[in-house]
Parts: sequence; structure tokens; C-alpha cells
Amino acid sequence: MVIRDIASLAEYRLDKMGKADVASTSRFFLGLNCFEPGQVHAMHTHAGQDKVYLILEGRGEAAVGEEESIVGPGDVIVAESDAPHALKNPGPERLLAAVFMAPPPQKKKT
Amino acid sequence: MVIRDIASLAEYRLDKMGKADVASTSRFFLGLNCFEPGQVHAMHTHAGQDKVYLILEGRGEAAVGEEESIVGPGDVIVAESDAPHALKNPGPERLLAAVFMAPPPQKKKT
Repeated sequence: MVIRDIASLAEYRLDKMGKADVASTSRFFLGLNCFEPGQVHAMHTHAGQDKVYLILEGRGEAAVGEEESIVGPGDVIVAESDAPHALKNPGPERLLAAVFMAPPPQKKKT
Repeated sequence: MVIRDIASLAEYRLDKMGKADVASTSRFFLGLNCFEPGQVHAMHTHAGQDKVYLILEGRGEAAVGEEESIVGPGDVIVAESDAPHALKNPGPERLLAAVFMAPPPQKKKT
């Protein structure tokens, strides 16, 4: 299966970070996290799932445990199971990240 | 863990497609497949593993089962377990793809 230009699948919303599904199986989930300037995905964990962000557009403030970094296109963030992680868009541009999870979340939420 | 500019980790070689590891856990593998013009990753399958390519640079000829597509940056190719798949760089530019596998391969090969 080929999915074209995944950035074009982004779903931004004004009230909170937007999410879009790209593809998933019983083994993984691939989606998009879409941040308007100022939006944040607050610190959280996933039990039994590893998450990988790949930044596609914009710049972000990433936190994994005690590690904080400014990230941009082509940068990868790895949050293993139970590792607290957060991502924020300080602006002024939109921030778009591809999100891989293995195994996939039960509720298809990232 | 943050990994900067994964494209900069690419390892091209003249004799065949190059591979580079980016990150892996017990649940996933993330690497790079690096194609000089004319190089091909011939049709093959993975048993019990799903693979996702995300094209980072260049253009490729992708095949998954009977489906054949020309792919470019931002396009995603999904090859589920046991689905035959191949990727070729027709040139003239280099082709660089991020490769995500879940679960990871036993030998760290993609």
C-alpha cells in the first residue's frame, strides 16, 4: 500500500493538537500530530508501547524524561514504553510530526 | 532520546544499497535504506514483521505485491508481514528512505 504525501493528511484544529491516522496494523500505528503555534501534547506515558516521532515540518520543544531538546525537520524523538514525553510548538509556524507506535494503541490514540 | 537530522546518518555504498541503523528497541527498528542511482532492494518478504518506508529524498519505484508506484519525499509504503515488496532507485538522484519495522528484525537487517 502506498500513501501519498502524508503531510497533506494533516488535520489542524484550533482547540487542541490535531491527530490524523495514516496507517495501522496489528503491529504498528502510523499517524500525524499536528500543532498550531502554542499547542502542546502534555507529558504522558504509554505502557507497553514504544513511540517514535519524526518531525516533518516546523520546530518543536521535545521532552523525554529529563531530556529537553529543540527539534526540527528530520529529527527523531524516541520515547520507549513508560518514558514520560511531551511535545510543544513554540511557533510561529505550524509543527507537524509523523508518529510511529509499536505495538499500536488500543484506542488508536497517540 | 533525540536523534538529529537522520538523513545525515545515511550510508551510501557503491556495490549495493546501503543500510544505516537509527534506533531500535525490543518493539521496533528504525533505519535508513540508501540507494545510489540504479540500486535496488529486490523483492522480498518478512515473516511476522510489518515494514513502513517513508521516503526522505529522491524518487523510487516501489512494489508491494502487484502494486507498483513511483514514490517521492513524504510518500509512505506499507508492506505487511509476508507481503512481497521491493524498492528501486531509477536515478538520477540518490534515494533515501526511512524504514520502520515492527517488531524489529532478528538480525537487525532490513
